[in-house]
This record gives sequence, C-alpha cells and structure tokens, in this order.
Amino acid sequence: MFQPPRGTRDFLPEEMIRRQYVISIISNVFEKWGFDPLDTPAFEDWLLLSKKGGEAVKDEIYYFKDKSDRELGLRFEFTASLARVFANNPNLPKPFRRYQVGPVWRYDRPGSGRYREFWQADVDIIGAPAGEADALCVAAACDAMQSLGFSEFFIRINNRKISKAFLMSIGVDKINDALRSIDKLEKIGKTGVVKELKDKDIANDKIKKIMDFLETKKLSDARKFVDGELGKEGIAELETIFEYIENFGFADYVKFDVSLVRGLEYYTGPVFEINAGINVSTGGGGRYDNMIEDFGGKPTPATGISLGIDRLVLAMEEKKLFKTDKTKTRLYIALVTDSVLKEAITLSKRLIAANVATEFDLMKRSLSKELDYANAKGIPFVLVLGEKEIASGKAKLRNMKTGEEKEISLSSIEEIKKIVI
Amino acid sequence: MFQPPRGTRDFLPEEMIRRQYVISIISNVFEKWGFDPLDTPAFEDWLLLSKKGGEAVKDEIYYFKDKSDRELGLRFEFTASLARVFANNPNLPKPFRRYQVGPVWRYDRPGSGRYREFWQADVDIIGAPAGEADALCVAAACDAMQSLGFSEFFIRINNRKISKAFLMSIGVDKINDALRSIDKLEKIGKTGVVKELKDKDIANDKIKKIMDFLETKKLSDARKFVDGELGKEGIAELETIFEYIENFGFADYVKFDVSLVRGLEYYTGPVFEINAGINVSTGGGGRYDNMIEDFGGKPTPATGISLGIDRLVLAMEEKKLFKTDKTKTRLYIALVTDSVLKEAITLSKRLIAANVATEFDLMKRSLSKELDYANAKGIPFVLVLGEKEIASGKAKLRNMKTGEEKEISLSSIEEIKKIVI
Repeated sequence: MFQPPRGTRDFLPEEMIRRQYVISIISNVFEKWGFDPLDTPAFEDWLLLSKKGGEAVKDEIYYFKDKSDRELGLRFEFTASLARVFANNPNLPKPFRRYQVGPVWRYDRPGSGRYREFWQADVDIIGAPAGEADALCVAAACDAMQSLGFSEFFIRINNRKISKAFLMSIGVDKINDALRSIDKLEKIGKTGVVKELKDKDIANDKIKKIMDFLETKKLSDARKFVDGELGKEGIAELETIFEYIENFGFADYVKFDVSLVRGLEYYTGPVFEINAGINVSTGGGGRYDNMIEDFGGKPTPATGISLGIDRLVLAMEEKKLFKTDKTKTRLYIALVTDSVLKEAITLSKRLIAANVATEFDLMKRSLSKELDYANAKGIPFVLVLGEKEIASGKAKLRNMKTGEEKEISLSSIEEIKKIVI
Repeated sequence: MFQPPRGTRDFLPEEMIRRQYVISIISNVFEKWGFDPLDTPAFEDWLLLSKKGGEAVKDEIYYFKDKSDRELGLRFEFTASLARVFANNPNLPKPFRRYQVGPVWRYDRPGSGRYREFWQADVDIIGAPAGEADALCVAAACDAMQSLGFSEFFIRINNRKISKAFLMSIGVDKINDALRSIDKLEKIGKTGVVKELKDKDIANDKIKKIMDFLETKKLSDARKFVDGELGKEGIAELETIFEYIENFGFADYVKFDVSLVRGLEYYTGPVFEINAGINVSTGGGGRYDNMIEDFGGKPTPATGISLGIDRLVLAMEEKKLFKTDKTKTRLYIALVTDSVLKEAITLSKRLIAANVATEFDLMKRSLSKELDYANAKGIPFVLVLGEKEIASGKAKLRNMKTGEEKEISLSSIEEIKKIVI
C-alpha cells in the first residue's frame, strides 16, 4: 500500500473543505486591504534560494538537479521569489502590494504541527518605509484572524533596533547570540534565558540588566533602556506603527514585547508574531529593508507578515471555530426505482443550474443503500423520487439532521432551493 | 538577474486575477455537480508515479531523491495520487466523487501553450460503472466551459472498444500502433494517417477500410463496422452516455468521433476530449476501469475528465472572454496633505469593513504622484481627501475610466459603496 511521502498529507474532502474555507477567508481579507494576488513557481534556482537562506539551507530544503543539471530547490517560503519578481519587473507600480497563498516545502523533522509540505498566506509591501505599511500588514492580519472567528488572538510586536541598541549600550559583545537566547523567553522562561546567557559567557551583571530590560511591558518604559540614535529610531518607528494600528481599530490585539527577535539574518527593524492561543506560532513577519538590494535590486524598503494555514486550521479545530459541512453537496435525489432515472437527471440539472449542489445514484442501488450513502457523506437533504412522485408532481424533502420531512412541488426549484441552501 | 526556472512562469496580479477567476468558476461548477475537493502532496513516491507512467516516465518528470535517498517525483497528473487515496481509505463513501485543482509538473520541452509547471482541474468518479457517471463528468465539463463564457466549444467522444473491435474485425495485427495513428487524424489529416499506416506495414485494403471507418460521423453508423461482443458493448455504452448527456441538456456540445483514442495504457472504454476552438486540446479524459486494481485496490470502475487551466486561460484571452480588472482594489483615497492621514486610515478601515477594497498612500507622495499610482494600477475610483473635505464632510469621488466626478458624503459608507462596487 502506497502512503503519502514522509511529512506530507492527503486532505480528504471534509478537511479540504475546512482548508478552502480558511484560504478563501484570508485571501478575501487580503484583497480588501489592497493586496493583489501573485503566484510564482513551486521550485526556484538553488542560487536564488541560497541568497535568502545561505548555503546551509540546502540541508533543510528539497534540493535537486533537473535533467540538464540545473540546481533547483522547492521553495521554502515566498519572499525570495517575491524579491526576484520585483527585481525583474521594474515597471510594477510602487509600492508593490501583493499576497501569495500556496504550499512551501521544508526538509524538516515531521512533528506536531510541523510538516514537510505546508501552506502559507503572505502579505508584503515593497517600497514603503517603516510606518503606515507595517501597521497595514498587522491590521490585515488582525482582520484575517477576526474573520476566521478568533477572538483571543494577539500579535506581539517589537523593533529589533531597540533590543540591539540596549545590548550595545550595556556592552554585550555577542549581540546576535544574546538576541537568540532572549527570543526564547516565551518558550523556555526566565530561568532558561538566564542559563543560556550564562552558557554564552555573558557576565552576571549584564545578565541582570538584560532580565530587567525583559520586564519592560510598555513601549514608553523601553525609553529608559536606550539612549543612542538606533534605539531612539526603533522606539519612534514603533510609536508610529502602534498609533496607526490604533487608528485601524486593532489596538486591543497588539502587544509590545521586547523579547521578540525572529530571523536574525533577515529582519531589520519591526518584527511581528501572531499568537492564536495554541502552543505554536500561527504566523509572523517584520520589516526587511536590505533584502531587495541583496537580491540585486535598488535599495528598497519592505515589510510583510505571513500566516501559517496548517496551524490556523489546527487552532480553529482546537477552538471549534469551524462550521463547515462534511460535503459541498446540499441535496441527494434518491431513486425509488431505476425507471425514474431520466427524470432525476433532468431535475438534478435544473437544481444545479439554480446553484443547488445535487447528487443522485450512479450505481443503480436500492433505496436503503442510497440513503446510507447520503448519510455517510453527510449530505444535509434528501429528496425521494419514485413513479408516484413523478405522477403527482410532489415529493418529500427530508432534512437528514432533524429528520423533518416536507412535501414540495417538483416544478418549483425555488421552493426546494429555499429549504436546502 | 534571476529568472523563473526554464518552463515555469510568474503570474503578476493582472494575470493572476484572471487565473483565479477561471479556477474559482471551475471549482464552483464542480461542487454544484456533486464533487468534493481533495488535495494530495506535490510529490509522490517514484514507485507510485511509475505505476501510472511506467519506468520511461522518469525521463519526462522531475525525479529526485530526498536526503534519506527516498526516490520521489513531482506529480505529473492527479490520478495516481487519487488511486492511492482511494486504496488507503476504504471507508470513503462510494462512489467517491472528487475534484482536484492544482499544479502538476512535467519535464517537457517548453513551447507554445506547453510549460513545465501547469495547472489542472480534474473531476473523477471512482466506483460507478459506464453510463451515468461518464455523462455526469462530461456534463460538468460542459457547464464549466459555458460558465467561463465559451459558446462554440465541443467535446469529442469515442469508445476505445469500438475502434479496437473494428481493427480486430478487419484483421489488423498491430492494433495499438494503428490506434496511435488514427488518433492523429485531427492533427495530421487523412493523408497523414494513410502515410503512417503504410509506414506501419498495414495492407492497402485494410487501410482503405480504416479510412472508410473514419468517415463515420454518427454513432448509429458505427454499428455496421463492428459485430463482436466488444464492439457492441462499446456502442451500447456510448448510446447510454449520449442519452444521459442529452437529458443533462448538453447534446449540442458533444460529437461522436471514431478517431479519438487517447492514452493507450490507461483508458479502457469511453474517452473524451475538449475542443475550445484553439489549436491545442483544453482537456480530456475517459474511463479507466483497471487502474484502481493495478494500484493494489479491489477491481473498481472509474471515470473522469481533466481541464487544463493554462490553456483555458489562453483560449479565453484569444476569445476576449475576460472581464476581470487589473487589480482587486476598488478605491484609492488620495491625500491632499499628510495632515489628513489619520482620517484616511479611519475612513479606509470603515470602507474595508464594508467590503470595499481600499488603498491609500503609504509613501507620503504628492497628490499627482498618488494619482499616477492609482492610474498605473488600474484602480477604478479615487476619492480626494484634504483638510477642506474633512471640514465639510464632503469629498469628490472620481471614476477613473469615465473621468466623471460625484460629490459624496464622507459619513455615508453605503453611498460610496453603491458607486464603487
């Protein structure tokens, strides 16, 4: 028996309907916020991918050669492709605001909520400096979360400039090492962070200062920890961003968090991370003002945020937010006898033309087997059609959940439609 | 400058909006016809793929090994995965009716309308014998074509059993060789077919009989060319299928075509091919009653049809069937002065909440630069907002196509919405 390759999954109809629901809600929200769709190939030149992830990323992705020995790799995120598209199309109106939804692949150890094939939904704005653009991405993400039905989510926000400026000001040498440990605060707690910093040979008095800094809960309180240009710039940027987020009406869903750092090689300032109330992050992002230039374009500021579809589905299942059905079919026409097949075909066509997703038996089964099928599939309504019904022009329409039956006229598609949709 | 890998493409917003339109119309039609969505991994075990395509297919696909030396390949169509899913999930209600839309990959020589990454939209019914199920797949495809705006498309239909029985009855030995040549009738014409048959050492009198057979235009006329069981079965199956297609209301869009054969290793009876009036096929399918068993399942009849998204987009562009916009954004709020930014943010949020896709400037540009941007993006409406407008509560809403301007009240989102959506 063949299985899906390790770390990948099949999505049977019931689960696929939930995934499509999530994807369509998010895409629709992104479009309302002024993002247009973009799509790029599933694989890219290895050189392009290595620009983003470094040579070491080869071990973490699906890398392969094609039959002409071209080095390729399955995309592991969307931004390298976005940078390529932006560089190749200088005439794109700026800022370039796009969203992209689709699968990405990582050769990761499969585990709870971690797969080798998973879907992301990204919004990015290329060409606008820190401020409105960052607030807009965070607001679009908040709207997506609300539209999916989340009420207790929040987005943690920091500016890498603040954390970096603080560490510099207290004389920490290995700033990136320290940042990596600080970033783990949510996961490993204060004791864990202290231990890691000690292991990295950071002096005790500095560790104490760092732990004091990590107590900061409000942006205004962060001011006393920084004094140089960099730190002040970081605070000013966040002040503006928080102000705009408030104007957008999402102040209750964002939290300043000095411990948040995220990808070190990539983000240059504001960073975001979405918490949907489950034990893994459901998305995140930030500003990456150096990337377009690194990819051979002109220096261009950029920011974005990414939602993890698989983890959002997981979180929605945990929180019982799905109200989707097991099937898209609304009505099953059960044939009492094969002799009414033609009438069933004609009736089904009229219903389908009126946007009622309709099925009937394709296997010449008995009525009871037909009802078993409709039940197993979770089709919500069944119409029983026999010669008596054809003769009288009336038939019984059964609600499969409540068991309620109603007599309807076969000539009125509208009457049936009103009940089943 | 990095390019997309050979044979793959980027889809910028304007084209992506058209693709999404096609995909959403088709998915919606498939759901109305009683097909539920399924998704499977982008790559599969090479052994599974080779079951469908044979060892030789390795040269035509993206084959690679992962870091644990697993042999994998990017899927080149959906049915092998479908057979695997069906075999692995014995509790699926039968018949299993699913649709799948997504990219597939072939290591093909790129050419006009031929790419290494392209999208397919398939419907298949597993578990139902020849008859209603085949008619339903063809009807769903007809509805999809109509819903996309095609009026002059048609679907060619044949039954491999008829052609095979005829060739056997006249004593042709190399039946598959002959079928391959016959299948090319549309492409290479009668002279071409005669030449190929001669090259395959088929006797002149037999070639004459074959060419007579190929003149058959009506199913009833095919009867005189076959007499054995197989041929009669083939005709009876098609008679039923054509009858049901007529009941579904699509008789005008199907044509009996004895020359149609399609994939020899795969299809066992009825075969279909969609002609959208461009010089390449836009889809096709047929019945494959042996495949589930070949994949290790119980003997199970199966049928389906596949639409080629990329070629449908091409055909719709040729026939100017697209009425989609260049952008999903409906309204641009142009700021006369930066001092009204907050009001613009608040107004945009109210519009977005009312489902009006809205943008405003994120780059502190001059009014004329803002209008250039809205123009370049093809945003259909612009609302000009300055301090005067904030003070009076009234602003001008400009239709960018007609140049028409209308004064609207900033407090009435409904009034704006009525104009711009």
